[in-house]
Amino acid sequence: MDTRTSSTTHLTDAQRIDWLRLIRSDRVGPHTFRSLVNHFGSASAALERLPDLARRGGADRPGRIYSAEDARAELAASRQFGVSLTAPGEAGYPPRLAMLEDAPPLLGVRGAPDVLMRPMIAIVGSRNASGAGLKFAGTLARDLSDAGFVIASGLARGIDQAAHRTSLTGGTMAVLAGGHDKIYPPEHEDLLAAIIASGGAISEMPLGHVPRARDFPRRNRLISGAALGVVVVEAAHRSGSLITARIAAEQGREVFAVPGSPLDPRAAGTNDLIKQGATLITEAADVIQAVEPIMGRTIELREPDDCAPMDFEPEASDRARIVDLLGPTPLLLDDLIRMAGTSPAIVRTVLLELELAGRLERHGGGLVSLI
Amino acid sequence: MDTRTSSTTHLTDAQRIDWLRLIRSDRVGPHTFRSLVNHFGSASAALERLPDLARRGGADRPGRIYSAEDARAELAASRQFGVSLTAPGEAGYPPRLAMLEDAPPLLGVRGAPDVLMRPMIAIVGSRNASGAGLKFAGTLARDLSDAGFVIASGLARGIDQAAHRTSLTGGTMAVLAGGHDKIYPPEHEDLLAAIIASGGAISEMPLGHVPRARDFPRRNRLISGAALGVVVVEAAHRSGSLITARIAAEQGREVFAVPGSPLDPRAAGTNDLIKQGATLITEAADVIQAVEPIMGRTIELREPDDCAPMDFEPEASDRARIVDLLGPTPLLLDDLIRMAGTSPAIVRTVLLELELAGRLERHGGGLVSLI
Repeated sequence: MDTRTSSTTHLTDAQRIDWLRLIRSDRVGPHTFRSLVNHFGSASAALERLPDLARRGGADRPGRIYSAEDARAELAASRQFGVSLTAPGEAGYPPRLAMLEDAPPLLGVRGAPDVLMRPMIAIVGSRNASGAGLKFAGTLARDLSDAGFVIASGLARGIDQAAHRTSLTGGTMAVLAGGHDKIYPPEHEDLLAAIIASGGAISEMPLGHVPRARDFPRRNRLISGAALGVVVVEAAHRSGSLITARIAAEQGREVFAVPGSPLDPRAAGTNDLIKQGATLITEAADVIQAVEPIMGRTIELREPDDCAPMDFEPEASDRARIVDLLGPTPLLLDDLIRMAGTSPAIVRTVLLELELAGRLERHGGGLVSLI
Repeated sequence: MDTRTSSTTHLTDAQRIDWLRLIRSDRVGPHTFRSLVNHFGSASAALERLPDLARRGGADRPGRIYSAEDARAELAASRQFGVSLTAPGEAGYPPRLAMLEDAPPLLGVRGAPDVLMRPMIAIVGSRNASGAGLKFAGTLARDLSDAGFVIASGLARGIDQAAHRTSLTGGTMAVLAGGHDKIYPPEHEDLLAAIIASGGAISEMPLGHVPRARDFPRRNRLISGAALGVVVVEAAHRSGSLITARIAAEQGREVFAVPGSPLDPRAAGTNDLIKQGATLITEAADVIQAVEPIMGRTIELREPDDCAPMDFEPEASDRARIVDLLGPTPLLLDDLIRMAGTSPAIVRTVLLELELAGRLERHGGGLVSLI
């Protein structure tokens, strides 16, 4: 089984079922998914090994494994709702999003797949934006749309809504925090319908998933990750848009901020971003000028390296030493490997076991800690 | 005669008369003044040589030399008006201003000399500022004043006025484009009186000089030059405050700009400055944080190096070759010296002659051209 192709990955039906089962199983996030497939050569091999790995990692009870029946039912229901569960490299999966380390293995895509393959700029900002902020977001989105960019945003009230509305003709993408059938805010159903008619919507959550507060920061990484850069239009101190900006910077995406008067609290966050190094923009041309050189770069897809299976069997002593080295303070994976005195493959396998046992937390920047 | 002392320069009465005569003579600006004193060892020696130099430079008629009587009368009238004509290094001459290459050899200082020796921040901006801009300028000036900085500005309507008003208690400095008795705008006489009561006003122009349009950019170099940095509060595209910002950058001063909405034309200039590298500020702390490291630096006074006279006599052939090398296109002085095939001192002497003959123009950055 080889899912690696340059730009036209296509999973078989059986593979898609296995991928969906693995990513929907307990304690398997996008990172773990990638590690498991890298280690065992395929999602189906990883599924077979999950209970054993979790047991060795010290799980008190095994995590739930998503059944083949559930996976088939989800695929069918999604298809009926117009949602394709696509893998990185497949049509409709935004190419830049596929480059993320924690790219969703399967992304629920609804709408026009070709539009979602085009270069994107994300526009985010306050839900309770000022009239000037809404006007600016709308103008910026239209101008960038006219220049050929797809506008990515979060379907929220305020700036998101303004950005989606003026970029409908050129194509815009809504990134959802819940399932495709659980829209937030509910009054944006009509806006979403218009978005899907000429653009698209994406979600990594299953149908029926009602978005909770903690789903929004997780969703935000998809907004920035799909785009060349993120424009923050209006943001107060400590607002969600600033989290998106921070994630965007960590992802290596451009961060743009729209300035405002120091007397306007709704500009406090964007002015802070500029102080911290974000690029001040006042018009679409500023954004285009900054992303043009990036667009010249080849987009390199990051996919699970589904190659030869590597069946490492850590010794109990390896496992014990690695657990001893870990603690609640995040440690660099590279440091851990150096200190463990064993092969990187063994360390990674033990970390997988711990992760599947619900005992390991992965932080940004290659840091891990025990829970 | 030696006017070089570390921090307490004091001219004799006779020297002050000579300095005033030299700087008020035709075709002698601050640059030429410095060159002449460097070449001939003193202002009085330079005054003796002026007619001869101008004649050799090819002047059709000699420039007017300011008479000793006129100088004595100006000094007396200035004193009567409360204006001291001070040299770099003397009390009341702002120390950073003395560091400029084109520092006025004699500066008319009125008010409290000790205040003008303290670290300064310049605040400039639109005459027709918005209410928010005026409020911000006032708050910023008060906060910086409370932190111990003297606020330098141009006594204009709008931002200047707001900045002066809130920093009266801590001390503020008005930089005038005309003579001390020719205030612009006239309705700011009362504000000026309040400024002088606790701070000061400076001008390089003689009493009676009515400010013309071209005096303002020249004056602006004194506002920025006296300060550690310049804050531009509100400025439209192509406004005078942007000229001050450009000069400040050329002088090596910090340039700060207050952001504003892209929809506000009065913020277009400041947003542009930030795009070009100025530091975005939203409060006094931003300014203080940026200038603190600079304040640690020793302030080095630039004074005319009044030392050994250097009587170079350029040959007619030197003069001809140098004039041939020059043209209407500005040329770097260093390049001219290299191409002239003679000593730098000879080149500088010929340039002085040409300058005094009204045939040479000096540009920024060491560039010279024939008129």
